[in-house]
Amino acid sequence: MPGNPSPDAEQLLKALIEQMRPAVAPETGLIGIHTGGVWVAERLHQALKPAIPFAALDVSYYRDDYEARGLRRDVKRSEIPFEVEGRDLILVDDVLYTGRTIRAALNELFDYGRPASVRLATLVDRGGRQLPIAAQFVGARVDVEPSISIDLTRGVDGRLAFVLNRRAS
Amino acid sequence: MPGNPSPDAEQLLKALIEQMRPAVAPETGLIGIHTGGVWVAERLHQALKPAIPFAALDVSYYRDDYEARGLRRDVKRSEIPFEVEGRDLILVDDVLYTGRTIRAALNELFDYGRPASVRLATLVDRGGRQLPIAAQFVGARVDVEPSISIDLTRGVDGRLAFVLNRRAS
Repeated sequence: MPGNPSPDAEQLLKALIEQMRPAVAPETGLIGIHTGGVWVAERLHQALKPAIPFAALDVSYYRDDYEARGLRRDVKRSEIPFEVEGRDLILVDDVLYTGRTIRAALNELFDYGRPASVRLATLVDRGGRQLPIAAQFVGARVDVEPSISIDLTRGVDGRLAFVLNRRAS
Repeated sequence: MPGNPSPDAEQLLKALIEQMRPAVAPETGLIGIHTGGVWVAERLHQALKPAIPFAALDVSYYRDDYEARGLRRDVKRSEIPFEVEGRDLILVDDVLYTGRTIRAALNELFDYGRPASVRLATLVDRGGRQLPIAAQFVGARVDVEPSISIDLTRGVDGRLAFVLNRRAS
């Protein structure tokens, strides 16, 4: 997109890691939202080294537009390999937009147990919120038109990169 | 509480009204959370005059600590006298604290329909969030110890006032 350079995902990841370093204790649970959020959570886990493994959450079943979207072919079952009840959690996503995915993720998490706290980390906050959701840890706030989607990709070398796409109308 | 004066509820209400005036369209739904949020929503409705009536929400059944708290005697059934589906809504509460009440309110709202958007207005934000929830409209941010509760009262003249109480331990 001319005049609209993609945010540098690797650089934003570094910024996010520095923000989160003081906030991640050994028992903090990192939970990535499928797909891009899982990639980010994996990298955060490598850098911040909490004692427990990171988890992946697929919120497809919990989204409020589930009936309209139907079920993707690649939907994953969520696996949380640690106790959610009473734990401090950090939900991780690649792009924060309307907030509907985060509401769905919270509902799925609470089906596993009642966490002590849930904070939210995102590589990019693109505004456009439709629910009163906010992230505590943000790589960068970016301003893009509603017609543009910001998608995270992962190369064969594991490096993360954002691409901007014009939405199919 | 010496050294900890109560926030002036009527003054904060004025501040909130001025913030919200540009954001409330005739079809915007104002939804107060029982009990204090309903009083605030009623006053906002009088001042901002949206075309549709305000609604009251009792989230007791939806709270994540419902089993621990049991059901209060004075629990009210929620009544939303307008269509939620596709509407811009503003949830109204008196005090924003952990965010758990707001999550419960969102879940109850979505049982009525899928709103176009939900924003959050609160007279006071006292920090201490345990969920990634934020208010768009805030009368004031106040800093009080966790051992203090901030409770809204309504006098016989209809005036709102905050009182600070030490929590029973």
